Amino acid sequence: MERVIIDMDEVIADPMGAMIRWYNEEYGLPYNWDNIDGSWSKGFPEQHHGIVKEKLLSPGFFRNLPVMEDSVDVLREMNEKYEIFIVSAATEFPNSLKDKLDWLLEHFPFFSWRQLVLCGDKRMISGDYMIDDHVRNLIHFPGKKYLFTSPHNLKETGYERINDWKEARRIFLRS
Amino acid sequence: MERVIIDMDEVIADPMGAMIRWYNEEYGLPYNWDNIDGSWSKGFPEQHHGIVKEKLLSPGFFRNLPVMEDSVDVLREMNEKYEIFIVSAATEFPNSLKDKLDWLLEHFPFFSWRQLVLCGDKRMISGDYMIDDHVRNLIHFPGKKYLFTSPHNLKETGYERINDWKEARRIFLRS
Repeated sequence: MERVIIDMDEVIADPMGAMIRWYNEEYGLPYNWDNIDGSWSKGFPEQHHGIVKEKLLSPGFFRNLPVMEDSVDVLREMNEKYEIFIVSAATEFPNSLKDKLDWLLEHFPFFSWRQLVLCGDKRMISGDYMIDDHVRNLIHFPGKKYLFTSPHNLKETGYERINDWKEARRIFLRS
Repeated sequence: MERVIIDMDEVIADPMGAMIRWYNEEYGLPYNWDNIDGSWSKGFPEQHHGIVKEKLLSPGFFRNLPVMEDSVDVLREMNEKYEIFIVSAATEFPNSLKDKLDWLLEHFPFFSWRQLVLCGDKRMISGDYMIDDHVRNLIHFPGKKYLFTSPHNLKETGYERINDWKEARRIFLRS
């Protein structure tokens, strides 16, 4: 079986959307969609960057994230045909670790704990395909790389893209 | 820099020793050192296997483990000369995840969160060297494999061994 390495945040989970909604309810200030290249947290007003980081570090934030559209259905099928690992750069956020495991097993019950990898850096991960929204994670990968489209990476060129899970279905399941 | 993948339990941390001491204090029954090939938990009386598993699953167990002798000194030096990742099969134990990160950063303060990987299976990990006490983790590894000696693997043959961290120092630091 070919091995597919799949990122969690902004690929199957939506922390950016959850944070913008939370921030808007709490502070009501506008999110700035310009100049977020490389990191969506740059879109929050500068005086609140600390508050956003604190929220990322708080227990529960990663437990309650929305699931990216169509990811459950496509991955359920892909899981039959590929060896799938969900690999998340998470150790910067100690409270996210158990939250991410619980979230994955709740929303993707066909995955087992054996298929989750929580790390800080992905350079030691090998496989046939990698789907990730950050070039820094794709850059070292030895297999075929797909940049998963996200508002913070729209200006990246030089990587083949997957724009959404419908497109992933066409590529990996030819359907 | 060459990359060295190092296991946590029974290699730099001592859950087996901690569990035997805890069990002995709680139940006072003897640990059976015969027939523990492959898994040290087989040494506890059969009627208490559930209790041992429960202890492994409880918050705090992995936070308070003893450090394996000489591992801190040798890894401090190795960390200057190699790209080190500590890779632990941990997702079976959801409460161990944050405990393992906190434990590592307390006892090995020269490591960063970027150097820890918490997973369920190690088959997607690549590197130049791997040190691990389980054949099931070494078997898929593409680089040079070292079996770290532990009471449960004494009968394994066919792998080059590292018996303790003094021996690791001779191999990796030639000192």
